[in-house]
Amino acid sequence: MAHFRPVALAHASRLINHGPTVLVTTAHGGVRNVMAAAWSMPVEFTPPRIAVVIDKQTYTRELAMASGAFGICVPGQALLDLTYAVGGTSGRDGDKFARHALVAGTGPVLGMPVIEEGCAAWLECRLIREPHAEDAYDTCFAEVVAAAADARIFVDGHWAYRDDNTELQSLHHLGGGNFVRAAGNLRAAGQV
Amino acid sequence: MAHFRPVALAHASRLINHGPTVLVTTAHGGVRNVMAAAWSMPVEFTPPRIAVVIDKQTYTRELAMASGAFGICVPGQALLDLTYAVGGTSGRDGDKFARHALVAGTGPVLGMPVIEEGCAAWLECRLIREPHAEDAYDTCFAEVVAAAADARIFVDGHWAYRDDNTELQSLHHLGGGNFVRAAGNLRAAGQV
Repeated sequence: MAHFRPVALAHASRLINHGPTVLVTTAHGGVRNVMAAAWSMPVEFTPPRIAVVIDKQTYTRELAMASGAFGICVPGQALLDLTYAVGGTSGRDGDKFARHALVAGTGPVLGMPVIEEGCAAWLECRLIREPHAEDAYDTCFAEVVAAAADARIFVDGHWAYRDDNTELQSLHHLGGGNFVRAAGNLRAAGQV
Repeated sequence: MAHFRPVALAHASRLINHGPTVLVTTAHGGVRNVMAAAWSMPVEFTPPRIAVVIDKQTYTRELAMASGAFGICVPGQALLDLTYAVGGTSGRDGDKFARHALVAGTGPVLGMPVIEEGCAAWLECRLIREPHAEDAYDTCFAEVVAAAADARIFVDGHWAYRDDNTELQSLHHLGGGNFVRAAGNLRAAGQV
């Protein structure tokens, strides 16, 4: 999309700092997949590292382990139904991008699928193999090696949530298909 | 507070499923502390387990490692300024509860400080020692052993975000003291 611009790696953690539900994308050996994940977080600013829980039963986990990489896309409110839908089906049953007419580009560093239409941002992530954490907690650590965001909502390295970009604002899964949307900037006293 | 009710452990992950910024509380050897953490997530439903990033430089980390436990409290929007304030100072410089006139009870299982006034929920967590993840990623894994939530916003095991309980709705840190608030239930198509 013409609106996406690269995000400096030093700012990449901000893209998921606020706890949005994300889409995890994968590609390996000519197949690709996408799932929803409510459980992710940054773990380090520099180098930018994240953790995401990817159940060991999922096709996404299989593909991520095979390729050593995955993408994280931050869906806006426009993708509410899609986000819930891709969380409830398996890519083993067919290409979910095709099923949902989901357009994905190719990440610049790792070749992961990156979704820009309806999303506010994406991150390409190189898996850091941690067999114990993966096995015991389904927690996959990764380093962010490329990131981009929609300039209509991420400006000069910061999110800019405004009344005119609500469709790009994040989704936060309460459970069972009930989400809350992020809204209304609040500025804490004493901020610099 | 009279509004808090126990939450079944099977539902505990829902309390942070939507990625709120939380308060991490600790107590050991007669001292106690509280800090803000934007980086936390559930990692397992049953038994309920979570991960939270606690920098190894912090007093919170020192106390959590010493006691093998910490509390997670989910502040509502009423605690916006407090949440930001306790994220920017160290408990090594004095008791932050006293400094901010923050009232805390005592958790029923581990004796961790639990904040109910201004918060929507709390979880008492027993640290699961994972020296490598703690060292490499400042990521602390823990099992939730007790949880409670305000019955005005968590009903029958589910969040109930409504127009009449916005003060208890969650905060999501964008960075630098800018937060977005969770708002407006969205129901995905196809939910059961």
